[in-house]
Amino acid sequence: IVSKLPNVGTTIFTVMSALASERGAVNLGQGFPDFNCDPALVQAVTGAMQDGLNQYPPMAGVQVLREAIAQKVKALYGYAYDPVSEITVTAGATQGVLTSVLCAVHAGDEVIVLEPAYDCYVPAIELAGGIPVFVQMTVDANGFSVPWDKVAAAVTPRTRMIMVNTPHNPTGTVLKAADIQALADIVRGTDILILSDEVYEHMVFDQQPHESLSRHPELAQRSFINSSFGKTYHVTGWKVGYVAAPAALIAEFRKVHQFNVFTVNTPVQYGLAAYMKNPAPYLDLPAFYQRKRDLFRDGLKNTRFKLLPSEGTYFQCVEYGAISDLPEAEFSKWLTTEIGVAAIPVSAFYNTPKESGIVRFCFAKKDETLQLALDRLARL
Amino acid sequence: IVSKLPNVGTTIFTVMSALASERGAVNLGQGFPDFNCDPALVQAVTGAMQDGLNQYPPMAGVQVLREAIAQKVKALYGYAYDPVSEITVTAGATQGVLTSVLCAVHAGDEVIVLEPAYDCYVPAIELAGGIPVFVQMTVDANGFSVPWDKVAAAVTPRTRMIMVNTPHNPTGTVLKAADIQALADIVRGTDILILSDEVYEHMVFDQQPHESLSRHPELAQRSFINSSFGKTYHVTGWKVGYVAAPAALIAEFRKVHQFNVFTVNTPVQYGLAAYMKNPAPYLDLPAFYQRKRDLFRDGLKNTRFKLLPSEGTYFQCVEYGAISDLPEAEFSKWLTTEIGVAAIPVSAFYNTPKESGIVRFCFAKKDETLQLALDRLARL
Ligand SMILES: CSCCC(=O)C(=O)O
Ligand SMILES: CSCCC(=O)C(=O)O
Repeated sequence: IVSKLPNVGTTIFTVMSALASERGAVNLGQGFPDFNCDPALVQAVTGAMQDGLNQYPPMAGVQVLREAIAQKVKALYGYAYDPVSEITVTAGATQGVLTSVLCAVHAGDEVIVLEPAYDCYVPAIELAGGIPVFVQMTVDANGFSVPWDKVAAAVTPRTRMIMVNTPHNPTGTVLKAADIQALADIVRGTDILILSDEVYEHMVFDQQPHESLSRHPELAQRSFINSSFGKTYHVTGWKVGYVAAPAALIAEFRKVHQFNVFTVNTPVQYGLAAYMKNPAPYLDLPAFYQRKRDLFRDGLKNTRFKLLPSEGTYFQCVEYGAISDLPEAEFSKWLTTEIGVAAIPVSAFYNTPKESGIVRFCFAKKDETLQLALDRLARL
Repeated sequence: IVSKLPNVGTTIFTVMSALASERGAVNLGQGFPDFNCDPALVQAVTGAMQDGLNQYPPMAGVQVLREAIAQKVKALYGYAYDPVSEITVTAGATQGVLTSVLCAVHAGDEVIVLEPAYDCYVPAIELAGGIPVFVQMTVDANGFSVPWDKVAAAVTPRTRMIMVNTPHNPTGTVLKAADIQALADIVRGTDILILSDEVYEHMVFDQQPHESLSRHPELAQRSFINSSFGKTYHVTGWKVGYVAAPAALIAEFRKVHQFNVFTVNTPVQYGLAAYMKNPAPYLDLPAFYQRKRDLFRDGLKNTRFKLLPSEGTYFQCVEYGAISDLPEAEFSKWLTTEIGVAAIPVSAFYNTPKESGIVRFCFAKKDETLQLALDRLARL
């Protein structure tokens, strides 16, 4: 068998989680909470199962959940998606990304990817027969930012899609109004589509707005916007998210979706729809994670790590140049095995090999877990 | 946006279910039970959620579930898959099929498909850039069978895969030892892979064996075998299944899988693993569905439908030539709206237009539901 994805190995998240558990390290690598979700959410899903809501849901998702999503997006960002024709429930955002790319990118089409990039983007493009075109984010003392002039320069007549991600994994940066403006200027008058990965939409800190592309109709009208219930409700293992896009794009999305997963777990969908009636859990999320971020950052101030900004997501990037000159992957392994705290090398998010001397920690952890990690890191 | 799947519309299952509910028809179209699953299964999943098993599972599935699957396959069919490297839990069998095809079929490769064929096979091949090569099953007074000579004649140097499906949807036929022999003769000495869709593996009637390809090591060693928990445990909406294949194939499968869905709902996996400790639910399934099949067939003997064999699955095909000369799709609609019983036209399973005067009923229904349908069909 000749591999279709010859460059793909085991993801860095799996590798580091395995190493962390083997060495008894505090796992601040792979992004997932170490605390449980709200029991009310468990109860809502259980109720749906007990009520016999266990057979195929509609292909695009149960209508009550699509309505709840549309209402949330309208309330938060002002854009009114039609739940019938413009929203599809996915088996997690990764499936949303692959399906968006498979339905829209033809063999030979170019897709602009900003590096560092979440690891599922490039394989999705390759499986569609597309060509990833990389633009590296700028990194300086203020952290990472998008060099829009380089994005504009990367556009060719074969550019089919630009991928953006805000809040951004792994860097924790968020797009600002000026970024949105620059993106809009680049795509205006072209038929370039946008895939916007907004799975951390409810984790933006310091009173900044989440610049969802659905706040910007000019962009929303050409965008597949991906979100995740796993991130928002502390259930990363439930594997459920959604894609919102204009009807013409969702029609193509669904053609692939119905022959990929066909549809998504029914009782989970009904449970989420019931649970979403209360907006408090996602409205409270920025404060919830900002407190954890601050606790973690404060603790790191006693170390020789240099903190980069964390404006959103549940990730904190740090420069470790004052501590070690190992490459990032080596440093992450050393940190895991010798110091007992697992991190993710940011180099793993680059296709083009690149060492920045930066690793990523996940602070979606119990305060005790963060404190234990800080105690260990204080040795540095 | 130029469609990647220009021929894809809404699936016939969705269309007929919508029409059935609009017209208050008894829905014997789309294949799903109208009764609930075992409360013990609901309890097992609820327990996992309450225990906090809600974060990312390992990419290939939780180890206890993969072990339970391997033990079941070994006990029933004698083949010992390694749960670590040869089994992957999927977000339903449709995802298993697409992922198998995407990882193995390169642009320009040919894939032999037996018609009638379940509707997800051809779009999977198209998305991989492959070329479906159709061989029609023979249909005569004894029902449907595979003309292996025609399959052999369809093989070319570009044949990469042959797709088989036993028990077969929609026809209800099962492969016999002679079929397996014929298939083995065709692929021996070639590097042709096999995708075997065995989602109805636990529904084979009249004491016949299920000729899983995992009974036949010579074939198992080149096969992706797909199964479904949704069918087996009356939870079609849970969207969970598995693929078993030799390690070299599973390695490629997982490369695509990890960037498609990444992994599958954690508490559902733990719940299934706990529930599978008791083999009775799947061992009892043939008798459970055979009784329903017999109830339904007995009732149809009072009508002018001609019954085809139903050796497996939860489907019963009938010829309606004595009742109507409408094309199958028209007849199915007429039956739904005028008689109040929804069926699926077998023509929907053909890529090459073909009318056989046959429709498919699903008998995975409460006895009362089947009785109500029979009462209505008795008018014919
Ligand atoms: C899908 S495992 C990776 C989880 C994640 O999103 C991350 O750690 O970046
Ligand atoms: C995925 S909806 C179709 C269900 C089914 O397998 C069938 O009816 O054939």
